[in-house]
Amino acid sequence: MSSSRVSSSPVSTGKSGPVDTVTTGPIEGSVKHYEQVEADGTILNVPVRRINLTNGEHFDVYDTSGPYTDATATIDLEAGLPKLRDAWDKPQVDGPPTQLNWARQGIVTKEMAYIAAREGVSPELVRDEVAAGRAVIPANHRHPESEPMIIGKKFAVKINANIGNSAVSSSIAEEVEKMVWATRWGADTIMDLSTGKNIHETREWILRNSPVPVGTVPIYQALEKVNGDPTKLTWEIYRDTVIEQAEQGVDYMTVHAGVLLRYVPLAAKRVTGIVSRGGSIMAAWCLAHHQESFLYTNFAELCEILAKYDITFSLGDGLRPGSIADANDEAQFAELRTLGELTKIAKSYGVQVMIEGPGHVPMHKIVENVRLEEELCEEAPFYTLGPLATDIAPAYDHITSAIGAAIIAQAGTAMLCYVTPKEHLGLPNRDDVKVGVITYKIAAHSADLAKQHPRAQDRDNALSKARFEFRWTDQFNLSLDPDTAREYHDETLPAEPAKTAHFCSMCGPKFCSMRISQDVRDYAEKHGLTDVNAIEAGMAEKSAEFADAGNKVYLPVV
Amino acid sequence: MSSSRVSSSPVSTGKSGPVDTVTTGPIEGSVKHYEQVEADGTILNVPVRRINLTNGEHFDVYDTSGPYTDATATIDLEAGLPKLRDAWDKPQVDGPPTQLNWARQGIVTKEMAYIAAREGVSPELVRDEVAAGRAVIPANHRHPESEPMIIGKKFAVKINANIGNSAVSSSIAEEVEKMVWATRWGADTIMDLSTGKNIHETREWILRNSPVPVGTVPIYQALEKVNGDPTKLTWEIYRDTVIEQAEQGVDYMTVHAGVLLRYVPLAAKRVTGIVSRGGSIMAAWCLAHHQESFLYTNFAELCEILAKYDITFSLGDGLRPGSIADANDEAQFAELRTLGELTKIAKSYGVQVMIEGPGHVPMHKIVENVRLEEELCEEAPFYTLGPLATDIAPAYDHITSAIGAAIIAQAGTAMLCYVTPKEHLGLPNRDDVKVGVITYKIAAHSADLAKQHPRAQDRDNALSKARFEFRWTDQFNLSLDPDTAREYHDETLPAEPAKTAHFCSMCGPKFCSMRISQDVRDYAEKHGLTDVNAIEAGMAEKSAEFADAGNKVYLPVV
Repeated sequence: MSSSRVSSSPVSTGKSGPVDTVTTGPIEGSVKHYEQVEADGTILNVPVRRINLTNGEHFDVYDTSGPYTDATATIDLEAGLPKLRDAWDKPQVDGPPTQLNWARQGIVTKEMAYIAAREGVSPELVRDEVAAGRAVIPANHRHPESEPMIIGKKFAVKINANIGNSAVSSSIAEEVEKMVWATRWGADTIMDLSTGKNIHETREWILRNSPVPVGTVPIYQALEKVNGDPTKLTWEIYRDTVIEQAEQGVDYMTVHAGVLLRYVPLAAKRVTGIVSRGGSIMAAWCLAHHQESFLYTNFAELCEILAKYDITFSLGDGLRPGSIADANDEAQFAELRTLGELTKIAKSYGVQVMIEGPGHVPMHKIVENVRLEEELCEEAPFYTLGPLATDIAPAYDHITSAIGAAIIAQAGTAMLCYVTPKEHLGLPNRDDVKVGVITYKIAAHSADLAKQHPRAQDRDNALSKARFEFRWTDQFNLSLDPDTAREYHDETLPAEPAKTAHFCSMCGPKFCSMRISQDVRDYAEKHGLTDVNAIEAGMAEKSAEFADAGNKVYLPVV
Repeated sequence: MSSSRVSSSPVSTGKSGPVDTVTTGPIEGSVKHYEQVEADGTILNVPVRRINLTNGEHFDVYDTSGPYTDATATIDLEAGLPKLRDAWDKPQVDGPPTQLNWARQGIVTKEMAYIAAREGVSPELVRDEVAAGRAVIPANHRHPESEPMIIGKKFAVKINANIGNSAVSSSIAEEVEKMVWATRWGADTIMDLSTGKNIHETREWILRNSPVPVGTVPIYQALEKVNGDPTKLTWEIYRDTVIEQAEQGVDYMTVHAGVLLRYVPLAAKRVTGIVSRGGSIMAAWCLAHHQESFLYTNFAELCEILAKYDITFSLGDGLRPGSIADANDEAQFAELRTLGELTKIAKSYGVQVMIEGPGHVPMHKIVENVRLEEELCEEAPFYTLGPLATDIAPAYDHITSAIGAAIIAQAGTAMLCYVTPKEHLGLPNRDDVKVGVITYKIAAHSADLAKQHPRAQDRDNALSKARFEFRWTDQFNLSLDPDTAREYHDETLPAEPAKTAHFCSMCGPKFCSMRISQDVRDYAEKHGLTDVNAIEAGMAEKSAEFADAGNKVYLPVV
C-alpha cells in the first residue's frame, strides 16, 4: 500500500512555464494493475485500480486515471503520454475508418477488445452496440494517447468533467492539473470549455497528456476569432476551427446544429430563455441574419470532416431548459426532433453520434426525456447535464443535479456531465472538480446498481462486508474517496487502535448495532439458527444453552 | 435587510454552564414575519421567513426556526421559549385528548388551524388527513413551546435532523446549539439521540428551547440505566423511562416493537445484520431471554401512556437493511407486517402513528417500500432514513442518501431523516448538521415539485427569474443557503459591482448565455415574435429592421 496520499510531482517543461506540476502516485490503498488481454495476436494492457485489502484479498475497480497513478511510470508533460493506439492496426473498411463502420462490417477493433475487458463483457456485445448506434467509442485517430472507453446504456454509466478557463480566471497549468485530477477520481471523459486566451495551446497540453477522450465545443473558439460578436461568425470560420481541433485530436465535439431559426421565438417566452452558451450564440446569429443556422445547412460537410478523424458528434441541446419552469417545453422538444434528423444523417456518413440532454427538470418529468430521445434519435447514447431537480440551491447544485442524474441514468442515459458546487456562481477550482466527480460517480454507480449492471453490486458488497467486520481501513480504501472518509473518521477518533475498534464516535461502543448484530449472528450461526423453522423448533433449548454460557456475547464493551 | 450573517448571542445561563451561546438573528436577506390567522376567536401568529427582494417585492417561505431568527425576540435559554400552546384550549373529547381523537370527532384544533396557515391549505384538509391517520401532528401537551407542524403525504415533505451526544463526544451546549442551528436551516423536527452522560438534562435543555417537535428513542436511556447490558432490560425500566420522557415533553418516540423473536434469525444471514441500534438491542434481549419482545407484549400499556400526553408513535424499523445487499429482504418486510398490526392497535387507543423506513436501498427497489408500507400500515405517514442508493461513498452519504430520499419522498414518504457527511464515520459537528439539513431540504423540495405540491414551484420560479435578470443578491437570498451561495460567487468576483454584473466568472462576459438570451427575448417581445407562426410570417421583415438597428443587442460586452 502506498504511504503517500497525494504527491505532487514537479515537472520541468522547458517551455514558457504553462505547466509545473500534476498529481501523481496511486490513490491511498491502491496500486495500478494491468490485465493482459490478447486481441488478434496483440497483447493489450488494460488498466485496473487494484485495492489491496487487509484480509489478504484484493478488489479491482475500473480505472480512468491513466499512467499518473502508476508508481512505475515516468510522467513527462512535454513529451506527452505514450501514443498507445498508434501501434494498433486500422483495418480496411468500406467508407471512412470509424468505429461505427468497422462495427457495422463485423470487425472487432483493438479498441473494442480493450473496452470489453474494461467492462467485463464480450467483444461482440461492444461491436453490436456500436454497430447499432446505441454506443459510441470517442477516439480521434489523432489522439492515440487515450485509453479506449465506451458510452452506451448497456455499459457502466460514464461521467464527464468540464474544465477550461474563462476570460476571468485560471491558467493553462491549472487546467492540465484539473484534467489529471478529474481523471484520478473517476472522470471518464473531459471537456475543455476554455473561452479565454490561449485556447489552442491549452487544448494541446490537455490532449497530449489526457488518458481519456477529450470533448470541445468548437463554436467557443470560433467566437473568439471574431472577437466575441456572434453575428460575425461564418461557416468558413467555424469549419476551419473544427479542422484545427480535429487535427489536434479532439475526440468528440458538441455541435448545436438543432437550434433552428424558427425555434428561437419559442425560447423567448421562457422564464430563463436560452441557457446553453452555444445555443444562445447560434440563436443570436440566426436572428441577426434571419438565416437558417450555418451548422444545420452545412451539416453534411461537417459529417465528412468528423468521419475522416472518427470524431464523435455530441449533438448539443442549445435549447435545453435552464429552470424547472422551462422543462420539457416546446422549444426543447422541437430541437430534439431536429437532433433526431441529424442523427440519421451523421450515421449515414459513418459518424458516431451521441445526444446531449437537460439541464433543469423536476423529477416527474425526467423519464419522458429519455423515452423521447430514444424514440427520436434511434437510441443514440444520451448525454445529460444533471438535470437539476430544483433551482433553489445554488452552491449545492452538484447535489440537486445528482438526484436528477441518478434518475435519468437509471432510465437509460449513458453519460452524465458533472455539475460542481460552483455551478451558476463561478468557475470551479480543483476542490470543486473533485467534489463534482465524486458526486457524479455516486449518481452513475447508483444507476448501475438500479440497472443491475454486471459487477456493480460487488463493490457495495465488499465495502459493506468490510464495514460489518470493522475493517476500517478497507472501508476507507474501497470507497470513492478514501482520503476524505479517513479524514472524517479520524476527526473524532484519530488514534491507530480506532482503525480496528468495533465502534466509532457516531454511536460509541455500547450502542454499536454492528457489534451487537455480529454477536447475534455468530451465536445464531453456531447454533444453526438460520431460518424461522429452526428457531421455532429449537430456540427454547438453545436459549437455555446460551444463558448457561453466561450471555457472554452481550456483555458490554467497557 | 440584516447586515449580519450569523451572530452568536452570548447567554448567561446561571446554571452549571451547560449552554453558553446559540445562533440568533435572521438569515441574510430575510426578516421574521407573522401572519395573523383567526381561529375560533383566537389570533394565531404564524411565522414565515420573509425574503425581501431588490426589486421591491418579497417572497415568504415556510419557517422552522422559531424566535431565534426574530430580531425583536429576547432569547433566554434558562427560561426557555414562550409556552405558546398553553394558552390554547383543549376541547372535550371522547377518549384521550389527542389530535387523532379531536380530528375523528370533527374538531379543528388550534394546532390544525395554525398548520393550515403554514401549509397554505384548508383546516378541513388538515383535520381529514389526521382523522384518517394519513398525517400526524407530533405535539406532546407538555411541550407547549413547539410551533405546530404536520407530517403527511398531502403536505410539504418534512425533514428531521438527529442530534445528541454519544459516549465519545460532545457536550450539552453543543447539542442545544445544534438544535437551534438545525432548525435555522430548515429542520422540521429534531431527534435527540443522546447516549452518553446527562441524557435527562440534555433533553430538558433541548425541549424547553425547541420550537419544533422533539423525538427520542427511549430504549437508549433505558439501556444506560442498566449499564449498557441489553439482557438486563425490563419492561418496567423501559416504561418508567418512557414516562420520564413523556413528562418532559417528548413529542414522538421511536419504538422498535416489531423486532420479534422469530425474525432475529432472518437477519443473521445478512451482509450487515442488524444496523438499527434499537433493533440490535431488542434482538439481543429476545435471543438472550428467548422471550417475545417486551415492547410487543406490553404494547397496549404503552399506547395508554402515549395517548395521555398525545405522543406520536414512530414505529421503528429495527430490521431495516444496512446495505444494498440486504434491501427489501424477508427480515425487513416481516417486521413491516408487524408494524402494520401495531398501527391498528395504536390507533384504536387514539394514538397517532408514523412508520420508520430504510436505510440502504438501490433505486429500483425504493418505490416498493412505499407501496408496501401504505398497504400494510393504513397509509400511516412514512418516515425514512435516506435511503442510501449505494454503499460505496462514506463521507458523501448525505448525497448517496439524498438521491434515495428524493425518490422515496416523491413516492409518498412524508418525512425524511437527514444523513450527514459523517454517517458511518463519526458524530456530526455543527457544519455537518448544516450540510445535512440543506441537502435534505433539497431532497424534500425536489419531491414537493415532483408531487406538484401547491406553492412549491413558486420559489424555483422566483429564484430563476432573479438569476435571469442578474439580480445576484436576490438569487443568493432566495436560495436554501444564502451565505454559501454568496461566498462561492465572491471567491472569483468579490467586488460589489459584480453583484449587478450581467455575467459571472463561470463563462465570463462574452459567453454569458443568459445575457445573449435576454437580448434575444427583448428583441422578440418588442417585435411580437412570440410564436412560430409569427416568426414565419414576419421574420424576414423584422430581420431587416433588426439589421438596420445595427445589431446592437449582440455587441459584445467588453
